[in-house]
Amino acid sequence: MKRMIFDEDHEAFRESCAAFLAKNVTPDLETYVSDKALPRDFWLAAGAEGFLGLEIPEAFGGAEAGDFRFNTVFAEELAKLNAALPSCVAIHTDIAVPYIVDLGTEEQKQRWLPRCATGEIVTAIGMTEPGGGSDLAALKTTAVRDGDEWVINGSKTFITNGFSADLVLTAVRTSPEKGAKGITLFGIEATDPGFSRGRKLDKVGNDEADTSELFFENVRLGDDRVIGEVDRGFIYMMERLPQERLTCSVANIAHAKQILLETIQYAKDRHAFKQPIGSLQHNKFLIAELVTKIEVAESYVDQAVLAHSRGELTATDAAKTKWWSSEVQNEVLDHCVQLHGGYGYMNEYRVARAWRDARVSKIWAGSNEIMKELIGRDLGL
Amino acid sequence: MKRMIFDEDHEAFRESCAAFLAKNVTPDLETYVSDKALPRDFWLAAGAEGFLGLEIPEAFGGAEAGDFRFNTVFAEELAKLNAALPSCVAIHTDIAVPYIVDLGTEEQKQRWLPRCATGEIVTAIGMTEPGGGSDLAALKTTAVRDGDEWVINGSKTFITNGFSADLVLTAVRTSPEKGAKGITLFGIEATDPGFSRGRKLDKVGNDEADTSELFFENVRLGDDRVIGEVDRGFIYMMERLPQERLTCSVANIAHAKQILLETIQYAKDRHAFKQPIGSLQHNKFLIAELVTKIEVAESYVDQAVLAHSRGELTATDAAKTKWWSSEVQNEVLDHCVQLHGGYGYMNEYRVARAWRDARVSKIWAGSNEIMKELIGRDLGL
Amino acid sequence: MKRMIFDEDHEAFRESCAAFLAKNVTPDLETYVSDKALPRDFWLAAGAEGFLGLEIPEAFGGAEAGDFRFNTVFAEELAKLNAALPSCVAIHTDIAVPYIVDLGTEEQKQRWLPRCATGEIVTAIGMTEPGGGSDLAALKTTAVRDGDEWVINGSKTFITNGFSADLVLTAVRTSPEKGAKGITLFGIEATDPGFSRGRKLDKVGNDEADTSELFFENVRLGDDRVIGEVDRGFIYMMERLPQERLTCSVANIAHAKQILLETIQYAKDRHAFKQPIGSLQHNKFLIAELVTKIEVAESYVDQAVLAHSRGELTATDAAKTKWWSSEVQNEVLDHCVQLHGGYGYMNEYRVARAWRDARVSKIWAGSNEIMKELIGRDLGL
Amino acid sequence: MKRMIFDEDHEAFRESCAAFLAKNVTPDLETYVSDKALPRDFWLAAGAEGFLGLEIPEAFGGAEAGDFRFNTVFAEELAKLNAALPSCVAIHTDIAVPYIVDLGTEEQKQRWLPRCATGEIVTAIGMTEPGGGSDLAALKTTAVRDGDEWVINGSKTFITNGFSADLVLTAVRTSPEKGAKGITLFGIEATDPGFSRGRKLDKVGNDEADTSELFFENVRLGDDRVIGEVDRGFIYMMERLPQERLTCSVANIAHAKQILLETIQYAKDRHAFKQPIGSLQHNKFLIAELVTKIEVAESYVDQAVLAHSRGELTATDAAKTKWWSSEVQNEVLDHCVQLHGGYGYMNEYRVARAWRDARVSKIWAGSNEIMKELIGRDLGL
Repeated sequence: MKRMIFDEDHEAFRESCAAFLAKNVTPDLETYVSDKALPRDFWLAAGAEGFLGLEIPEAFGGAEAGDFRFNTVFAEELAKLNAALPSCVAIHTDIAVPYIVDLGTEEQKQRWLPRCATGEIVTAIGMTEPGGGSDLAALKTTAVRDGDEWVINGSKTFITNGFSADLVLTAVRTSPEKGAKGITLFGIEATDPGFSRGRKLDKVGNDEADTSELFFENVRLGDDRVIGEVDRGFIYMMERLPQERLTCSVANIAHAKQILLETIQYAKDRHAFKQPIGSLQHNKFLIAELVTKIEVAESYVDQAVLAHSRGELTATDAAKTKWWSSEVQNEVLDHCVQLHGGYGYMNEYRVARAWRDARVSKIWAGSNEIMKELIGRDLGL
Repeated sequence: MKRMIFDEDHEAFRESCAAFLAKNVTPDLETYVSDKALPRDFWLAAGAEGFLGLEIPEAFGGAEAGDFRFNTVFAEELAKLNAALPSCVAIHTDIAVPYIVDLGTEEQKQRWLPRCATGEIVTAIGMTEPGGGSDLAALKTTAVRDGDEWVINGSKTFITNGFSADLVLTAVRTSPEKGAKGITLFGIEATDPGFSRGRKLDKVGNDEADTSELFFENVRLGDDRVIGEVDRGFIYMMERLPQERLTCSVANIAHAKQILLETIQYAKDRHAFKQPIGSLQHNKFLIAELVTKIEVAESYVDQAVLAHSRGELTATDAAKTKWWSSEVQNEVLDHCVQLHGGYGYMNEYRVARAWRDARVSKIWAGSNEIMKELIGRDLGL
Repeated sequence: MKRMIFDEDHEAFRESCAAFLAKNVTPDLETYVSDKALPRDFWLAAGAEGFLGLEIPEAFGGAEAGDFRFNTVFAEELAKLNAALPSCVAIHTDIAVPYIVDLGTEEQKQRWLPRCATGEIVTAIGMTEPGGGSDLAALKTTAVRDGDEWVINGSKTFITNGFSADLVLTAVRTSPEKGAKGITLFGIEATDPGFSRGRKLDKVGNDEADTSELFFENVRLGDDRVIGEVDRGFIYMMERLPQERLTCSVANIAHAKQILLETIQYAKDRHAFKQPIGSLQHNKFLIAELVTKIEVAESYVDQAVLAHSRGELTATDAAKTKWWSSEVQNEVLDHCVQLHGGYGYMNEYRVARAWRDARVSKIWAGSNEIMKELIGRDLGL
Repeated sequence: MKRMIFDEDHEAFRESCAAFLAKNVTPDLETYVSDKALPRDFWLAAGAEGFLGLEIPEAFGGAEAGDFRFNTVFAEELAKLNAALPSCVAIHTDIAVPYIVDLGTEEQKQRWLPRCATGEIVTAIGMTEPGGGSDLAALKTTAVRDGDEWVINGSKTFITNGFSADLVLTAVRTSPEKGAKGITLFGIEATDPGFSRGRKLDKVGNDEADTSELFFENVRLGDDRVIGEVDRGFIYMMERLPQERLTCSVANIAHAKQILLETIQYAKDRHAFKQPIGSLQHNKFLIAELVTKIEVAESYVDQAVLAHSRGELTATDAAKTKWWSSEVQNEVLDHCVQLHGGYGYMNEYRVARAWRDARVSKIWAGSNEIMKELIGRDLGL
C-alpha cells in the first residue's frame, strides 16, 4: 500500500540523503567492512551536509527539524545500505545527542553540540555492562564522591561507536543502595584520564560498526559532566528509550525491505528447472507472504512515527514496534537467504550480510523479552 | 496505538450501532444460534435504523454514505458479537447490493434497492459451486438462450444468507467455451420457478449464518434479470472482490480483538497456582505478543480502509489484508482458547465459538492460497 | 519410515481390533454423534471380545497383556475413527482401571474388575474441578470423617465418560491443610446416594464423548471405597499420569495420521485449475511437511511406547510426547482443513470433526503449559 | 529419552573418538578458524587412528565397519566441536570414498583408497556449479572425447574441502543432449594439468571449512579416471545422496544438541533480575520446548540410522531426516543465541558460531525445497 506519512519536504530530503550516500558512502562500503568502522570522513561529510543535526537546535549548529519523519527518512536510506549505518548514526544523532539537548547545561551544549553537528564529535551511549544485559537497574559502574569530584570505576560493553566515540554518555551508579533510583548520567570524553577502550568486538554481523568495551579506571570528573540531575539517570533513559526503539524499528523494516526487493529481482533473474525460481509456486507464495509481512509491519511503524512526531508515542507502543519489526526483519531475511540458495551463504552477497546483521535487532535496545515484559506490565498483567 | 482513521461522525455512528445492537441483537443471540439463522426481524430493525443502506443512493432509500469508514464501524460493532453477523450483513450491504447500485438498470434499482434498504429483501451472492472452490473460471451453472429467455440450470454451495435470501446475484456461464469471459450475473429471486434451496449446512462455526446450497432447475429469466452486460460477470466480480475482502479483514480483526480483550480480563480474574494466570510470565509474554499482533494488523487494515475510502485500494492490497488478518485472527483465537483451559473447549464460552467461527476466514472470499497467488502475480512472479 | 516396534502378535491383534471396529462401531458412528455418547452396547461388545481387559489380571477376567504395545494398537485403531473413542476407552482401560489393579484391595478387585473387563462397569476419573484446571494441588472437593464414614462434598467437571460411568475414581481432599499431600482417591459408584451428574457438556468437539460435571452432596462412603492409602492420592495420580499422557500421544498421532492419509487421497482426487490440487507445488510441499512431521512424532511416540513397555518411561518423557504430539496433531489437522477448502468447514466431512476434536488435546491430561513446566523442572530450571 | 540404538562397541568407539578429538583437535580449533581450513595434520592423525576408513575395505587399509552407527558416532563427536568438522570429514569418508569403494576399478582402489584411509589423500565431491544450485540435471561442465582421452572444461562451486582436496570426484556432462542421463563421474586429481582452484570462499559460517570454487581448463584424462560407467553419474549420485543426507542429519542434531546443553548450563549460571535466567518462566518453557524438539528429531534420525544400517533407508526417508533436522537445528540455535543476549552475537561465543554454521544446512546436500519435492513426488503428488 502506498505510504501516506511523508509530504514533499520529506521526499526532497530523501533524495538528498540518497544522493549523499551514493556519492560519499556507497563507493567505500567494502572499506568500512574491512576496517570494522565508519571512518571519520563519513561523519564529517554527513555533518557538512547537515544530516547529523536534526535534533540539535539551530543556535548550536543543527537543523532543529522537530519532525521525526526526517530522522525516519535518513534512517531508511542508511538502512538500505546495511544495518550498521543507521545504528551507528542514530546512536549519535537520535539517541545520545538528545540527552544533551534536553538535559544539558548551556555550558555543556556549547561544549559539545556544535561539534556533534559537524561530526567532529561522535557520541556513544554507555548503558550495558558485562554480565548485565537488559537489567539496567543492576549497574555496577560506580561514581564515588571525592571532594568536588566524582571518581568513576567500572566498564561497559557492546557499546556501538565505542571505539571511535569522542564523548560517551555513561550510566553510572552514584547511590549504591538505591537501585534504579541511584543512577546518574555522565558525559565522559575519550581524552579523560582513566578512560580506555577494549578492542573492537568480533561480532556475528554489523561488521562496519566499531562496537567495543569501555573501561573507566579512576576517571575523575567535576559536576560539569553530570547530565541532568544526580540519581535521575534511570528515568532519563526510560524517557528516551522509545525514540531509540522507534529508530531501530524504522531501520529494521527498511533494511529487510530493501533486501527483499533485491531478492525478488534475483528470483526473477535466476532460473532453475527451466523457469525463474520466483515463479515456482512455493517461492511465489513465500514471496507474497514476505511482501505482506513487510508492508504490514511498515504500516505499523509508520503510524508510530506519526505518533512520535505528535509527541504521543508511548513506551509500550515503542516496545511493540521494536520487537515486532525485528521479528519480521529476521524472518524475512532468513527466507531471502534461502531463496538465494548457496549464494545466500556467501558474504559477498548482500543478503548474507544482511542476515547476519539483523540477528542483533532482537537483542539490542532492550531484548524482545524485555519488550514483552513492558507490554504485559502495561496491560496490568 | 490510538487509531487515527475515525472522526467524530464515525464515533457517533459507532455509538448508534452499539446502542442498536445492545437493544435489538444481544438479547437474542442464543436464539440466532439455535435457529441457525438471523431472523427477519433483525434485518427489518437494522433497515429501519438505516444500517443496511450505506451503499444505496438516497433516491432509493439509502444513506449513500460514500465513506467506507461507516461500513467499517458497523462491521466492527457486529464482529464484537460474533463472526456470523458481520459476514451475513456485509454479504447483503457491502457485497451484493453494490452490484445493483453500480450495474443495475433503473428498473432493477427501483425493483430491489428500496427493499434492500429496509431489510424486506435480503440478498446473497452465488459464486461458489460444489467441487469448484476458488476456481471461479470453471463455473458449471449455465444459462442457455431460449427465445427471449435464459434457462438456468445448476447449483451453488456455501452461500451465506442462502436459506433466507430473497434475491441471489448469481454467476452463471452464458458462453460455454469462453472460460472466465463467458460468465454473466443474474438476479434470481427466491420466488422464481425452478429455484430451490438445500438444507442449512452444518458448519464448524458461524452457527448463526444460514449457509445453504442453492439449486436452479430450468429457471427461466428475461434479460431484465441480467446484471450489467452479458459475459462480463467475471470482471464485475473481480472489481468488487476487494471490497468484500476488506470487509472480511475489518471483521476478522475486530472479532479477534474483542475476544482477546475478554481473554485478558479472564486472565486477570482467574487464579491458579496462587496468582492470576495472566501474570504467569509465559502467559504475560504471550498476551503481549497477541496484543501486538492485533494492533499491527489493525493498523494495516485501517490504512486499507482509508485507501478504499479514497478509491485507491488495489486488489492486491485487499488480498494482503484478507489473508493476513485471517491468519492473525485464527492465531490469536487459538491462544485465547488455550488461556481459557478446559473452558475454552466449551461452546457456552464465547471464546470457543469464536475459535470455531474464525476458521472459515482463511478459506472464504478467496482462499488465502488464492490471495498469495494474486499477490505473487502482481509482483510479476 | 517403517515402524519397527510391533511384531506378529501385535499385527494380528491390530487386525482383530480393526475387524471388531468395522463390524461393531463404524456403522453406528453417526448415532454416537447424535447421542453424544458411546452406547453401552459398544462397551459390552468390546468387553466380550476382550479389548477392555488388557490391564486386568486374568484372575479377574482380563487379558493381563503386560505389553503396552497392545494398548497402543487398540488406541490407534480407535483413533482412526475419531478422537473421542480412544479417549473414552483409554480413560476406562488404561487410566482408571490400573488404579484398581495396582492399589485396590482384593475385595475391591472382586467387586469391580470383572465387570470392568466385560464393560458392565464403565469407569471415569474425577480430578479436575470447576475453576481448578491443571492445578491439582488446589482441590476443593472434601471428604470429612464422620464416625466410620467419609462424607464427601464437592464437584468435578470435564469428566470424560462422566454421564455414563458406573464408577468414578475421585480425587478428594481429606486433609485440608496439607495441600498436595492431603488428597485421597475414592471409588464412588453412580448409585451412591448423593452422587449426581450435570448435563452432557456442549463441547467444541469430541461430540461422541459424554463429558459431564459430577456433583457430590453428602456422599457417605466407608473405608472400603478408599483406593490405596489415605492422603496418598496425589502421588498415585502422578505415578499414573505418564501412562495417560502416553495413551493420549498415541491417539493424537494416529488420529492426525489417518486424516492426513485421507486428505492426501482427497488432494489427488480433487481437481482445480486443471490439475489435482495436491500437485500444486504449494500443496505438494505442504503435504510433504505434514507427512514428515507425523512420521517424526510417531517415531518418538513409538520409542516412548517401547520405553513404557520396558517400565522405563519417565514422567518427563511422557510430558514431552504429550505436548509435542498434540501440537503436531493440531497443526496437521489445521492444514488438512485448509486443503479441503470450504468442505473442510462442513461437519459432514471427517476432517472438520477431526479438527474440532483435536483442539482439546493441547489442554487435557495436563495442559501443554504444565508439560513444559514439568520438563523445565526436570532440567533443574 | 534414553537412546537405544548403540551397543557397547559403539560406546567404546565414542570414547576413543572423544579422546582423539580432545587431544588432537580441541586445542587447535581457533587455528582452524583463522586458517579457514582443517590442517593436513588433522587428516593424518585421524587416519592414523583409523577414523577415516570406516567405509574402506580392510584390503585397502580401512576398517570396513559395515555398520553406519560407527559413522554416526564419529559424526556426532565431531559435531559437538563445530559444524564444519563433521561436514569436511563426512565429505571425505562417507560421501566421496564410497563411490570409489562401490564403483571403482581394482586399479582405482589401489591408487586412491589406501591413502584415503591414512589421510594422505583428502577428497571432495564436485557437483554444484555456479548458477546451478540444486538443479543437477542442468550441469554445464563438459567432457569431450578426443582420441583416447576426455577433455574437461568447466567449473564447480561451493565445494567443501575444495581448497585442500587431492582428489575430486566430479560430475561432468559427457552427453550434451541427454540431460540427467548424460552425466559421468571423473576422479580428478589436484595435480592434473588444467585443474585449478579459486580462493577459499568467504562464508557466513563454517569458517573452518576450506570451501572453494574449482576450475577445469582442458583437463585431459584417460578412461582410467572414469568412476563407474559413462553417462551413469546421475544415478550413482542419486543412490549415494541418502547417505550424505543422513550424515548431515546426524551432525545437525548433534551440533544443536551440544550447544543447547551448553546454553542450559549458561541459563542456570547467568543471573538477571535476581535469579538464574533459565528459571524465568518464559525461558524455562522455551528450553523445555527446545529439549523436546531435539529429542524428537534425534529419535527420528536414530531410526533412520538403524534403517540405513539394515540397508533399508529410502531416499524419501533420508530427505525427511535432512530437512527436518536442519529446521530443528536452526530453530534451536536461534533461540540459544537469544538466551545468551548480547553475548550470543559475539563470535568468541560458541553459540554465535554455531548459529552461523547451521544456516547452510537448510541449503546444502539438496536444499530443503528439493527435499520436499522428493517427498511429494514419492507420495504420488
